[in-house]
Amino acid sequence: MSDTTCHMSISLDGFCAGPHQSRDHPLGVRGHELHGWHIGDPRATEADRTATSWLMRPRGAYVMGRNMFGPIRGGWDEPWDGWWGPEPPYHAPVFVLTHHEREPIEMQGGTTFHFVTDGFDAAYAQAREAAAAGGGDGGVDIAGGASTVRQALNAGVVDELTLDIAPVLLGGGESLFDGVRDFDFEPVEVLHSPLTTHVRYRRRQPG
Amino acid sequence: MSDTTCHMSISLDGFCAGPHQSRDHPLGVRGHELHGWHIGDPRATEADRTATSWLMRPRGAYVMGRNMFGPIRGGWDEPWDGWWGPEPPYHAPVFVLTHHEREPIEMQGGTTFHFVTDGFDAAYAQAREAAAAGGGDGGVDIAGGASTVRQALNAGVVDELTLDIAPVLLGGGESLFDGVRDFDFEPVEVLHSPLTTHVRYRRRQPG
Repeated sequence: MSDTTCHMSISLDGFCAGPHQSRDHPLGVRGHELHGWHIGDPRATEADRTATSWLMRPRGAYVMGRNMFGPIRGGWDEPWDGWWGPEPPYHAPVFVLTHHEREPIEMQGGTTFHFVTDGFDAAYAQAREAAAAGGGDGGVDIAGGASTVRQALNAGVVDELTLDIAPVLLGGGESLFDGVRDFDFEPVEVLHSPLTTHVRYRRRQPG
Repeated sequence: MSDTTCHMSISLDGFCAGPHQSRDHPLGVRGHELHGWHIGDPRATEADRTATSWLMRPRGAYVMGRNMFGPIRGGWDEPWDGWWGPEPPYHAPVFVLTHHEREPIEMQGGTTFHFVTDGFDAAYAQAREAAAAGGGDGGVDIAGGASTVRQALNAGVVDELTLDIAPVLLGGGESLFDGVRDFDFEPVEVLHSPLTTHVRYRRRQPG
């Protein structure tokens, strides 16, 4: 299915990272509490494993923000390969939104990071093209972070949005929704565990 | 069951009323979109009817904030009987937090509004006592609004919190969670319809 999807973990008060984000603490204070369901909290259940399979299913291409690729390490004069280690979990072309031109980086396992300097719409168009030409299910995933997701929502391109709503109040940090103008989704599937509520939303069809 | 419960409808960005609340628009701009599931939206489903039965089940007593009782109408020199008409849906004692002393008002159908001027803890203690002595299931419900719910959460008295999370972004207004310090709940039951996701949370047991 060539849907454009997005899957984000948020707190009940709408943040996808806590306050005081930094290079050493990219999720901010307590932000890791949003992610226990897929990174080994022993309270995770079958519902969490199903939602993890949603998160990890192969897609045709990805769009991500600069901070999802990796933090700045001594500036772009010191090239490096991002957060994800030698074999990132994408296994497909990933289009990274940035202000800094850079040659693509081909990683092990089929992930190639492409750096796009002319904005979300350009990156998304390239991702669509790559997905249509390539493997996976032919669809594009918006891989985060919050700013990139907001741009995708405001561009109206997201067909399916999955939110893992953790019963956690972060009280501040990076809001997923601040400045999102259009939002016309409805819940179509819901799973829950003690750790979170997984809600799969589909964009409503016009009319 | 003598649990203390609370049931609130919120937007995905954590507001229980939109911006620009006023006497004529107590839910603020677009706040009514949170409530379609129980007030007649034709898209409501069996899930919404089940959640409505949770909302309407008889309780032993209620605590509510001043603005849930009713807006100020020419000050307290002009007594009146609140929003709820001659037969409010509570059918039990309701303890209203206010700064203005007033004699209790007995309504039709078993609802009596008591006005409490010495704060949440006092109102909650009176509600517990009335619930234990009276009808319903012997438990107390925190009937809103947001400020009263925040006080109840911070006092640690809420055993069960049900949230109807509407796929709506209000972008501002009355935040349910702003300033809530302690929050240790987990989802135990979830229902969904095109209009909302109903999540029943239980307070985690210590240890």
